[in-house]
Parts: sequence; C-alpha cells; structure tokens
Amino acid sequence: MVDIGNFQELRKKNIKVAKEKVKNSVSKDLMIINAINNIEELDKTINVFSGRLREWHALTDPEMCKRVEDNEVFITEVLQAVGGGSEMGAKLDEDDETAIKALAATANALIQTKTFLLLYLEKTMDLYCKNVLVLAGPTIGAKLLREAGSLKRLASLQSSTVQLLGAEKALFRHIKTGARSPKYGHIINHQIIASAAHADKGKAARSLADKLSMAARVDYFKGEFIADKFLKELTEKFCKKEKK
Amino acid sequence: MVDIGNFQELRKKNIKVAKEKVKNSVSKDLMIINAINNIEELDKTINVFSGRLREWHALTDPEMCKRVEDNEVFITEVLQAVGGGSEMGAKLDEDDETAIKALAATANALIQTKTFLLLYLEKTMDLYCKNVLVLAGPTIGAKLLREAGSLKRLASLQSSTVQLLGAEKALFRHIKTGARSPKYGHIINHQIIASAAHADKGKAARSLADKLSMAARVDYFKGEFIADKFLKELTEKFCKKEKK
Repeated sequence: MVDIGNFQELRKKNIKVAKEKVKNSVSKDLMIINAINNIEELDKTINVFSGRLREWHALTDPEMCKRVEDNEVFITEVLQAVGGGSEMGAKLDEDDETAIKALAATANALIQTKTFLLLYLEKTMDLYCKNVLVLAGPTIGAKLLREAGSLKRLASLQSSTVQLLGAEKALFRHIKTGARSPKYGHIINHQIIASAAHADKGKAARSLADKLSMAARVDYFKGEFIADKFLKELTEKFCKKEKK
Repeated sequence: MVDIGNFQELRKKNIKVAKEKVKNSVSKDLMIINAINNIEELDKTINVFSGRLREWHALTDPEMCKRVEDNEVFITEVLQAVGGGSEMGAKLDEDDETAIKALAATANALIQTKTFLLLYLEKTMDLYCKNVLVLAGPTIGAKLLREAGSLKRLASLQSSTVQLLGAEKALFRHIKTGARSPKYGHIINHQIIASAAHADKGKAARSLADKLSMAARVDYFKGEFIADKFLKELTEKFCKKEKK
C-alpha cells in the first residue's frame, strides 16, 4: 500500500519548491520590462488627454489652443489660467472651469508619473546593465531588453538580430510578401543613426548593433564599464561628417 | 473709387460680429458632450492601467492579484501594501516598490477625476435638462445628447430615432447588408430595459424612448419637472413582473 503520509509530505515539499522557484524567477529584467511598458502607455495616455483637454479648453480660449503647441506647456497654462474667456472664447461658469482644470491636473499627474518612472528605469538599468544604458539610452535600451525577453537573451543574440529588434512586423512582412527588408528596429531613434549621413545610416546601424550586442554581453557577465569608449568611437566615425 | 477706409471699418465690424458669434455658440451642450467624452476616456484608461498594475504587482504578490477582482479595491490595496512579497512573490527593492506605488497612485487619481467629472455632469444636467437626467441617468442621458448633437436636436428627433441613438453601426450594417436591425442604442443599459422580461424588452425600449423624447422636449422648452412620473409609470409597467 502507498504510504499516504509520506506522499502528502512529498507533495507539500514539492509545492514549497515550486513556490520558491516562482519567487526567485522575478528578476530585474521584469522590472525594466514593466517600467518601459508603463512609460509607453503613459505616453499614449498623455497624448489622448492633451487632445481632449485642448478640445474642451478651446471653448473658452480657442486662440491659446492654437498658440501653444507643446502639450506640457499647454497643460500648465490651463492650470494657471484665470477664467473669463478670450476674445473669441465663451465665459464659463465656475463649475465648468473647475471640471476643465481637474482634467488638466490629471494630465499633469500622468506627466509626473512618467518622469518618475523614467528616473526609476534609469536607476534600475544603471545597476543592472550600465553599458546598455549608456550606449542605447534608457528608452531604447529597455525596449531592446523587452523585445529580447531578458538581458541574458539579449546578450546571446547576434548583432544582426539586435539591429532589427522592434522591427518584427516589417521583418515578417518582408519574409511573407517580399517587401523591402527593414534596416533598423528600435535603434532607429538613436542619436548615432539620426546624425549619420544618409548614405552611412545602414553602416551606422550595423556598427551600433554590434557595440550594443557587446555591451549586453559585458553587462551580463558583470564586466567593466566600456560603453563610453564605444559611444565615442561611434560618434567619431559617424557624426564627424556633419561638422565638416 | 472704392473707399478703403470704409471698407476696412466694415471688415473690422464683420470680424467682431463673427467673434461674437463664435463666443455665443458655446452652450451647455458642448460642456456635457466634453464631460461624457472624457468620462468614457477615463474609464478606458483606468482599465488599461489597472491591468498594467496587476501585471507588475503580481511579481511581488500574485495571490492578491487573483483574490481581489475589483479594480478600485485592488488599487487601494496596492497603495496600502507593505512590501516584502507574499509566499510566492518576490521581495522587491524599495525603488521597485515606490515605482509600483507611483503607478497605483496615478490610477487612483484617474478614478478620482472620473468621479469628479461624473458629479460635474450630473450638476450641469440638473440645471440644463433635469427631465432627461432623471429619466435616463447621467451617463445614458449625456450619450444620447452627444449622439443627437444638442438638446435642441434631441428634442426634435422622433422617439424611434432616440431608441436607436448609439446603435448607428448596427443600423447601417442592417441597411447595407440586411442583417437584423438593432432594437436599442445607448438605452440598452437602462434599468428599465435590463429588468423587463425578455419578451417585453422591445416594448420597454419603445416606451422608454417615447418618454425620453418627451422629456427632452419639456427640457428644451423649459417645462416643468415630470420625469419622476414617467419613471414611475415605466417601472410599474415593466418591472412589476419580476416581483411576482
């Protein structure tokens, strides 16, 4: 006969081990991925609410909505505005004004949370993958890490894959329909690519992906800090021509 | 020769008249429409951020994310949680915890803004279209007003149109492809329809739309308050059967 007592003990032990494993599977990777996802979401939301706020505030001050293009400045101005309506805008009740300002305050809170999460992301990456942080910047670096899944996987990817991380949609379109293959993924927003001469962009992307791949490896194996050297090299190679 | 001086004076006068017209075209309708649009947007955003918060917080306390289903309760519990991780959750750094709480605080601020705007909407509708407010409730009432464009237009619509306001997509699908015609638009969420017996739902929708149409007319022509009588009539007619 099976000894039920022993079996239940084994079961308990197994559950304990499993729970322990779940607990220890939480890495800084997941923190970074969650942070960048939320920053992206906040970005979208801030845009949506800025648009809605513009639409609403335009009733009392249409001129300002045209004049102030930057969303953050706009939100601050709405919060500071003293009611009464502009030349073309309607004079609002106190209630209407309070409602519009409540929306502006919410948008402002969203901006502040985004700023805070960006700082948190930088701080976390500074301790976990400083080379990737310095070479790619917090946003691009975190997105690369997210697309790869973890720092470990990012470190094990070929540099040509790193170059295309974030361009999966275009890549599969290329494979499926034979459309032109993408040249860059998330790194397209990097300053090195942006400031490279048009003919050099492809080359710059390859070199940057190469260095990024190395940076991820150095970070994963807890090597020394070398991203500043990489960045200097790349800048000298690709941004010099602009100065001539 | 044309007298330029006179012409410019005329032009100035015309601009002044135009600006005056723009100014006076802002009505409570627009306030109500903006408020309901923003409430809907806030609703969506609160859902998105609750989901993201659940995902992130699950790293430190997966049990709680399963246990607490209500988003508002969940957000409050995250804000009050003292770090350390549950049995299966990881113990987080202080920084990680602060970041998660910052997100929870933002979600909370969004909920508060939504509550505030709902109160504002009710107050505005109470002064502007009390019959519609009491008969339809603030959310459905404001949506009907938005779909119609203004209280004036809502008052001039046939009750069969009011019945289908908000179901434009299904209506045009019906006209184009011959699919089944929609029975109700926004009023489908009304308590009268919800609590009517299944066989009576269509009849209830027609009666409700009929009364809503009357309510809008009374509101537009500044008549007396009759919505409570309408509501009582409808409740007696369609919700009685449940009590039997």
